[in-house]
Amino acid sequence: MSFKYRLYTPGPTSVPPETLAVLSQPVHHHRTAEFRKTFGEVHELLKYVFKTQENVYTITGSGTAAFEAGFVSTLSPGAKVLNVTNGKFAERWASYCKAFGCELVDHKLEYGTHVQPDVLKSELAKTKVDAVVLVHSETSTTTVCDLKAIAKAVRDTSPDTLLIVDGITSIGAMPFHMDEWGVDVAITGSQKSLMLPPGLGYVALSKRAQAAMNGKKTLPSHYLDLRQYAKTIDKGDTPFTPANTLVEAQLVSLKMLKAEGIENVWARTALCAKAFRAAAKAVGLGLFSKQPSDSVSGVTYPAGVDDKAFRDHLKKAFNIHVAAGQGSMEGSQFRINHMGYTDWFDVIAVVSAIELTLAKLGHKSFEPGTGVAAAQKVFAAA
Amino acid sequence: MSFKYRLYTPGPTSVPPETLAVLSQPVHHHRTAEFRKTFGEVHELLKYVFKTQENVYTITGSGTAAFEAGFVSTLSPGAKVLNVTNGKFAERWASYCKAFGCELVDHKLEYGTHVQPDVLKSELAKTKVDAVVLVHSETSTTTVCDLKAIAKAVRDTSPDTLLIVDGITSIGAMPFHMDEWGVDVAITGSQKSLMLPPGLGYVALSKRAQAAMNGKKTLPSHYLDLRQYAKTIDKGDTPFTPANTLVEAQLVSLKMLKAEGIENVWARTALCAKAFRAAAKAVGLGLFSKQPSDSVSGVTYPAGVDDKAFRDHLKKAFNIHVAAGQGSMEGSQFRINHMGYTDWFDVIAVVSAIELTLAKLGHKSFEPGTGVAAAQKVFAAA
Repeated sequence: MSFKYRLYTPGPTSVPPETLAVLSQPVHHHRTAEFRKTFGEVHELLKYVFKTQENVYTITGSGTAAFEAGFVSTLSPGAKVLNVTNGKFAERWASYCKAFGCELVDHKLEYGTHVQPDVLKSELAKTKVDAVVLVHSETSTTTVCDLKAIAKAVRDTSPDTLLIVDGITSIGAMPFHMDEWGVDVAITGSQKSLMLPPGLGYVALSKRAQAAMNGKKTLPSHYLDLRQYAKTIDKGDTPFTPANTLVEAQLVSLKMLKAEGIENVWARTALCAKAFRAAAKAVGLGLFSKQPSDSVSGVTYPAGVDDKAFRDHLKKAFNIHVAAGQGSMEGSQFRINHMGYTDWFDVIAVVSAIELTLAKLGHKSFEPGTGVAAAQKVFAAA
Repeated sequence: MSFKYRLYTPGPTSVPPETLAVLSQPVHHHRTAEFRKTFGEVHELLKYVFKTQENVYTITGSGTAAFEAGFVSTLSPGAKVLNVTNGKFAERWASYCKAFGCELVDHKLEYGTHVQPDVLKSELAKTKVDAVVLVHSETSTTTVCDLKAIAKAVRDTSPDTLLIVDGITSIGAMPFHMDEWGVDVAITGSQKSLMLPPGLGYVALSKRAQAAMNGKKTLPSHYLDLRQYAKTIDKGDTPFTPANTLVEAQLVSLKMLKAEGIENVWARTALCAKAFRAAAKAVGLGLFSKQPSDSVSGVTYPAGVDDKAFRDHLKKAFNIHVAAGQGSMEGSQFRINHMGYTDWFDVIAVVSAIELTLAKLGHKSFEPGTGVAAAQKVFAAA
């Protein structure tokens, strides 16, 4: 029996066939009126998703490239940066201080936890920093923070400190109000909630961040220097050749998000996460995070279930790809995506396959159907 | 009457339908045995195209990102760099010295010319530099240099100087022997000869360049720090999420290049360029460059033919997209691609459309068919 291919990794995520179809069309040049129109439409829709009136710059590169663009374009050599370090991606951002000669204030936390707004507020009251860097939804530990309260804490204690937010698995998946909350640098990538293959990164700057970019000597870069992007964006251009077929495909996915309504997308993602968590609990699985994100769930195994055997069976028997734990978390958990092109029945399907796989591997402490019924109850109540 | 869409810009260039078809397939994750196998095959084929035994790193980004990766990973703060500045792309590379605090020795030349090996040799005998940066085939001026002789001049005068070559419109289009000639940093992009949409850049380092990268403090970067790519390439991984669907599609195009044989690809490109130049001359068009490249032809107009009217007519009447002149060259020339997915009949077709357009715009000093016949003679003799 042949099972359909199903991708549940938290990036790349599934891409709608309508979007994929665009990628098989003949390639066009990017310095044309047609492309400028497409690029302009994508830009407006990105602003809608970021909830900002400011420009959202398109970088050909990964989410890391977009983060680097935000970091080097707004900070100066020797800048003092408080980094909330609570996962693999947060650790990557901490390493930027060393790479670019900034001073790191390492706010190190246990994996699966996140910074509390009042704790951050008292730290900022004691230690003046040029920027706070944090990950809104840390994909490696599947942990979210209360970004609204954190942004308020930053704004209340320090009017000049830049709040740099990795929103790679939050923007487009959960409430994110860049302007209203006062986020200064907001970053995401194309292959998460925005329903595109990897290859594009997006970064937006608040007025405060723009002033920082334009008012001082910033960290060295050329490809990722956002001043170059700021010069061309109003003309519908990028300073360097963009991955233009991905931009054209991005328009299709963004139009789908707009048609659904971004608030509805957030609610759908949250409901899928809630249903999945209910199912996981019902079949004796644990959650790794103490503040679980709605964009991705990190699930710990019951005693006796081997990670590799579990993921291998899902893949070989059912053609289902879930993500392993990352770094030191590999072996003790698996992760399931709820972002982007995901609906209720994708949740039901993966819960069903997880139930069958657990039973196959000897974990039979639940009646078949317990997981899918638990998920179903959540959807039925919605 | 409806004409088929034909793209003749020197990047993006046309992509084979077999390759485009891959881009419409469901998206997979990139940390899998299957992707590692594909990535490894792409890597071997890139080495074949670059004519190198060294690693060729895949950067998700444009050719500029790949250039920046080579530049920042091998040079140190304060490095003295001789830049051959003879076109828009060479000017971009010259600006890197200022952006990264290097000392620029600006070897400025008239557009349409290129550096002569003996001139460079005597300059290097007088001025010791850490690196020579040049564009093998400058797309803006459609001008090529004798890279083999230039590389010898660099090697003969200075054993330690790095030769950094923008091969964006040369690698895969014309003879390029990285190892044999002694090129230290070789760069290209996916959207030129390698028959892919934009989105990937490639950069290879000689043993000398690798020693420079590993032996000293280099310029700051993280996303474009090739040490990170060197650490993961043998495992079939990239340090950051790659544009994996483009990598999968790249394999198809590279296999086509391998099946044809890279030397045959070079010969085909040269023949197409030769036939096009013969046709251009036959209908009274001039060539902008004094050392024309075989990858792209820059054509000057006869008196009385307006650039915008000419390109508009090609586009609106015949659905053919040629490139304008770049920067200060806009208005006085148009450019035609010969790289990548291009065969004899693509040349015949564009010459035919050019003839018809010139006549339509009042330039009738040639008999209809003069251009296509001139091109045909070149192909017939091959």
